[in-house]
Amino acid sequence: MATQRILDFLATRRPNGPCLVVDLDVVRDNFRAFEKALPDSKIYYAVKANPAPEILRLLAAMGSSFDTASVAEVEMAMDAGAPADRISFGNTIKKERDIARAFQLGIRLFAVDCVEEVEKIARAAPGSRVFCRVLTDGEGAEWPLSRKFGCVPAMAVDVLRHAKGLGLDAYGVSFHVGSQQTDLSAWDRALGDAKKVFATLADEGIFLKMVNMGGGFPTRYLKDVPAAQAYGQAIFSALRKHFGNALPETIIEPGRGMVGNAGVIKSEVVLISKKADNDNVRWVFLDIGKFGGLAETMDEAIRYPIVTRHDGSETAPCVLAGPTCDSADVMYEKTPYPLPLSLTIGDEVLIEGTGAYTTTYSAVAFNGFEPLRSYVI
Amino acid sequence: MATQRILDFLATRRPNGPCLVVDLDVVRDNFRAFEKALPDSKIYYAVKANPAPEILRLLAAMGSSFDTASVAEVEMAMDAGAPADRISFGNTIKKERDIARAFQLGIRLFAVDCVEEVEKIARAAPGSRVFCRVLTDGEGAEWPLSRKFGCVPAMAVDVLRHAKGLGLDAYGVSFHVGSQQTDLSAWDRALGDAKKVFATLADEGIFLKMVNMGGGFPTRYLKDVPAAQAYGQAIFSALRKHFGNALPETIIEPGRGMVGNAGVIKSEVVLISKKADNDNVRWVFLDIGKFGGLAETMDEAIRYPIVTRHDGSETAPCVLAGPTCDSADVMYEKTPYPLPLSLTIGDEVLIEGTGAYTTTYSAVAFNGFEPLRSYVI
Repeated sequence: MATQRILDFLATRRPNGPCLVVDLDVVRDNFRAFEKALPDSKIYYAVKANPAPEILRLLAAMGSSFDTASVAEVEMAMDAGAPADRISFGNTIKKERDIARAFQLGIRLFAVDCVEEVEKIARAAPGSRVFCRVLTDGEGAEWPLSRKFGCVPAMAVDVLRHAKGLGLDAYGVSFHVGSQQTDLSAWDRALGDAKKVFATLADEGIFLKMVNMGGGFPTRYLKDVPAAQAYGQAIFSALRKHFGNALPETIIEPGRGMVGNAGVIKSEVVLISKKADNDNVRWVFLDIGKFGGLAETMDEAIRYPIVTRHDGSETAPCVLAGPTCDSADVMYEKTPYPLPLSLTIGDEVLIEGTGAYTTTYSAVAFNGFEPLRSYVI
Repeated sequence: MATQRILDFLATRRPNGPCLVVDLDVVRDNFRAFEKALPDSKIYYAVKANPAPEILRLLAAMGSSFDTASVAEVEMAMDAGAPADRISFGNTIKKERDIARAFQLGIRLFAVDCVEEVEKIARAAPGSRVFCRVLTDGEGAEWPLSRKFGCVPAMAVDVLRHAKGLGLDAYGVSFHVGSQQTDLSAWDRALGDAKKVFATLADEGIFLKMVNMGGGFPTRYLKDVPAAQAYGQAIFSALRKHFGNALPETIIEPGRGMVGNAGVIKSEVVLISKKADNDNVRWVFLDIGKFGGLAETMDEAIRYPIVTRHDGSETAPCVLAGPTCDSADVMYEKTPYPLPLSLTIGDEVLIEGTGAYTTTYSAVAFNGFEPLRSYVI
């Protein structure tokens, strides 16, 4: 949603070209909503969602911890004021020299999902805590996860046992139910799997301490505090159900949930045309597309709300596309997007819910277009 | 193919991290092969394929013209030494202020595919030459084109008539048969459509002069000069068949065909793992993926040759993925990639045929990873 602060900024500053505007007040509210919804969980903000220094500084000051994907992200979090003990190197795919560098910077918490990665960490970050990512099915998520991260629970047992054997601190398990996960039973299933790993290892005298529940918290629940609390309550109940009174430490890693609804992209209609006189679908070309920051429209996975000055008037279906000479730079075609018939070339449109996974996804110079600019206010 | 010059460069310079190395000798050979295969066509290099200044300077010096997608690309071509009359603003989607800026820089040749764009050009670049892009079906192309660009031939007639009425020079038609097009009959069909537009307008006293045949020339034909010439011969025959003795000027816009096989990406194996003990597919994670320059692996559309130091030894199917925390950053999964069983973490691999559509596609900082570096030698 475009807040009044964002609207005022755009009206006053009139930035040229497409840009993202992020309202820090919304990020602050989101952080507090997470604290309220899951008061017993530590919040590790997923830096990759939006690493703008202003966002990182705000969250660091509010006491957030940080989930990072690379040494560069570790450094960004530290530059923003986060001490090393509040940073997790959460990517399961790391070069050994990057692990060594992170260790040198003070990082002691690492994600793994195979024995090969455990061995790198044992060599490059001796004695560190590791958590093993477990595969979940991601059913019900809007941005589905492939099998890229994690291993089956039985293998997680081997991985953590191996870690212990190499002198690492076998610290816990993690899972990720998928982005924008709305099916609460997904958490229940994943927590059930996590508990099995805890139990099997406990029988061998290895006592895990932490469950990292990842991200996947739907942005829309945050707008509505009772809904957010009901959500947190459901997760807490699943924890109780599987772990009883021996509740583990828990971590959550919101990214989209923390910043998605805090940002709005301002774009301009470059062209509206048809392919034939008798076509009943218009093509609407914006000055931003799949390569300019809206990569998550891939496979039409995420459908952003689009606001125009003509809203409320009659609409008709449009194919929505970006400004590049790339034929793949089409955002919504299979399911056309209804836009006002009175929309015209040169009109400004606001693409809402774009605070996460936009700026850094942007191509560096494709077709000569510069990467998405961003203003954090 | 990795040339000896590229191999020597990598062996001597040992660049850290993933990078693209482009051999200018191959680009030079490609330009000459195009000149030989289609001696009567003007070559407009598609700058978007790879805008490295060294490539643009070489081609400008060899007499190439340039197809550009934005004002930034117009400026890059001019900086490389191309005069304005050798530059086409070939994107059908342009802001009016960008048309005005290009006109100011001396550009007089513009692509259109609708009357709305014609009207912008009439206002912002009065008197300029315009060509109208006609929709082709793109059948047989490896990187299929959507219906994003062009209009049906009947509408192209209206568009060019409208251009003439507004004082523009209705100059010709263009089409694009799709990238890596191997079906020669695609050119025949498209040239047949082009001829119909010419004939209909000639009856009204509007005489078009040019056919822009776009790109789509398969890289592999260029390795083999007789094949390239046979290819050119087939296109020339189709021109003769449809236009008889009144052959129009022709333009080609090779991008991938000019630089694709001139570049090789050096990458490192970051991790090899399985998801379960009984999995028979290994996951191989490289330090480059879909967001680091290999965007064209989207939908597994393009399958790059991968060279390892173990080639020749026994292989097994692998899922190939990039280093980011994004579950969509998987390159080949539906059709696993056979790689040597002896491949190990830390091995260097060469990804061939990556000179086009890699560097500029690269995300600006996703997951904190820097964009793909490039060396032009």
